[in-house]
Amino acid sequence: MNLRSPGPTPCPDDVLEAMGRQMIHHRSSAFAEVIGRVTDGLKTIFETKNDIFCLSASGTGALEAMVVNFLSRGDRILVVSIGVFGDRFATIAETFGAAVTKLDFEWGTAADPRAVEDSVREGGPYKAVLVTHNETSTGITNDLEAIAAAARRAQPGVLLLVDAISSLGSIHCPVDEWDIDVIATGSQKGWMVPPGLAMIAIGERGWHAQAESDMPSFYFDLAKAKDFLAKGQTPWTPAISIFFALDVALSHLVKEGPAGIAERHQRIADMTREGVKSIGLELLADEQHASNTVTAVRVPDGVDWKVLYQMLQDDYDTLIEGGQGPLAGKIFRIGHLGFVTEDDITKTLDVLKQALPRVGYQLPEAATTR
Amino acid sequence: MNLRSPGPTPCPDDVLEAMGRQMIHHRSSAFAEVIGRVTDGLKTIFETKNDIFCLSASGTGALEAMVVNFLSRGDRILVVSIGVFGDRFATIAETFGAAVTKLDFEWGTAADPRAVEDSVREGGPYKAVLVTHNETSTGITNDLEAIAAAARRAQPGVLLLVDAISSLGSIHCPVDEWDIDVIATGSQKGWMVPPGLAMIAIGERGWHAQAESDMPSFYFDLAKAKDFLAKGQTPWTPAISIFFALDVALSHLVKEGPAGIAERHQRIADMTREGVKSIGLELLADEQHASNTVTAVRVPDGVDWKVLYQMLQDDYDTLIEGGQGPLAGKIFRIGHLGFVTEDDITKTLDVLKQALPRVGYQLPEAATTR
Repeated sequence: MNLRSPGPTPCPDDVLEAMGRQMIHHRSSAFAEVIGRVTDGLKTIFETKNDIFCLSASGTGALEAMVVNFLSRGDRILVVSIGVFGDRFATIAETFGAAVTKLDFEWGTAADPRAVEDSVREGGPYKAVLVTHNETSTGITNDLEAIAAAARRAQPGVLLLVDAISSLGSIHCPVDEWDIDVIATGSQKGWMVPPGLAMIAIGERGWHAQAESDMPSFYFDLAKAKDFLAKGQTPWTPAISIFFALDVALSHLVKEGPAGIAERHQRIADMTREGVKSIGLELLADEQHASNTVTAVRVPDGVDWKVLYQMLQDDYDTLIEGGQGPLAGKIFRIGHLGFVTEDDITKTLDVLKQALPRVGYQLPEAATTR
Repeated sequence: MNLRSPGPTPCPDDVLEAMGRQMIHHRSSAFAEVIGRVTDGLKTIFETKNDIFCLSASGTGALEAMVVNFLSRGDRILVVSIGVFGDRFATIAETFGAAVTKLDFEWGTAADPRAVEDSVREGGPYKAVLVTHNETSTGITNDLEAIAAAARRAQPGVLLLVDAISSLGSIHCPVDEWDIDVIATGSQKGWMVPPGLAMIAIGERGWHAQAESDMPSFYFDLAKAKDFLAKGQTPWTPAISIFFALDVALSHLVKEGPAGIAERHQRIADMTREGVKSIGLELLADEQHASNTVTAVRVPDGVDWKVLYQMLQDDYDTLIEGGQGPLAGKIFRIGHLGFVTEDDITKTLDVLKQALPRVGYQLPEAATTR
């Protein structure tokens, strides 16, 4: 299967082999070695000296962990949203009792740092600004560096909580240089590992907020995670196999380094965007902010996405994801993060060239004669 | 490694092989097939027609899910505790705002159903009774059938929330016959699967309570889990590999059937208890309620558990777990659930016979001459 979803992503053979290792005990020195090495590796790729924890949960669990650990009931916060996952971050914060002000941007566009600055200046002070680095639902990467700086210009010391689930480990995101207080990602994205772990980094401002938070938390209590990591453990039984897999994946990623990882994703993303345009398809994203992990493409007029989606799987062994929420049926999304090569993208584009004419789309002449 | 912990437990080869399978998409028909088969298999082993969901979390996540879905803030509840995990259940309920009355029994003994009945009659009415079926920390199995009946005699319709994390899939526990409203277990126990999934069954009374609960929940929101399972999906990206593994493990367990599984665990547990006593060691548990998944053994006078624990790993490639909380250093615990044979227990007992004399314990004559 050519799995071209923005997560879960395919895993390399040695990562899958690690998934199949026999169990060890999670309070043994053998596990302490693994979690120690994993934590160090993550710090290298996050480019941070902050604490990092691996939660046995999906990325949404990490979003909830950010809300319940760092906010208090009634806290006024600003949530910057450009799609499904920004909206989800806001919903979680509301669910747990934060007073949410939302700053929405049109889906398919990036957040304007100046608008963030104005919002914080006019509506603030806020306890925190919540923002999505890479919006998986629209294929847009926010300019996190500029947004963080803008928020801090308007209100120095405001807490920044960042959903980097589909960017960290793929897209340039130096956590300390950009002074991000709390940031999270998920194992099934650029990390080339199956889903089941969410990784979260916490800086000093974050710990201050954590100490004063009055939201209820137990499973996701990061103070407990800190106490246990000091012993090379997690508070609750962790997803051990996924630690094994992440350990192996990180050995490759650390060797490549953050700059190499970002360049590789840039190269593959450029190739994907060019390829999509060469067959006459239209990108959803404003290209200046098009994501290097996922490309959102408008479904051409007259094409039934559900038919195409099924045909790609049944006849071409290829899975591409559709749109979410209001974009369902209107876009499809090609994932190109983690364990993906130029060949995989070429194959995907070739498959699209074969399938699209079968669902009523006429390829541009240049594409058919290629 | 002879991993004789009460979880994580060793996994069969074909289960580990399934862990190493390449990713599929969690919103594809391929995943829908897996989750459908897994859910059906779980219903067979739980002996229930109730809804069952697999949460990507550890068992503690399932305890939190039970609290935040079925209780409301200020609800008066009774928590029956006989050890660490009963206490944890109470702490979680308190954390999220329930008004907890605790009914404690001495660690190493079982809860007395008559005392539960009296407590509900005298202290009630309660919204719910929370109880641990098998207390992993002391190796005691509560008489859940009698406790459930006692609670219902005192207050018909009281909600029963049961932590069966280390019993379901190992110890006789027919959910519908005993009329248990909500019950949860974890993949790394008798299920012979790595940690990362918690499985929870919910009956009609549970759904009524779920609809009226005012505790905040998002990641663990079971109404969302229900909506998505109807489509063969989970609300958030699930730990796909562990679904693959559970699917394979269930194919064995369903073939064996609940009665066969319970008998197998009874046989191995009897052998463990007899073996431990034959080398002169003392069981913590009142034998009438000794668990068929984990045997708690008193550390003999003069023996330093930490030294023995390390020696067993370093020199005998065997891991046995120590005590938790106030029992740390005072007991050790031999797990015998899931993928375990008589040979594994014989090996464990032989290792103890070799190691114990090296840490100052004198074996009884009968044991040395054997």
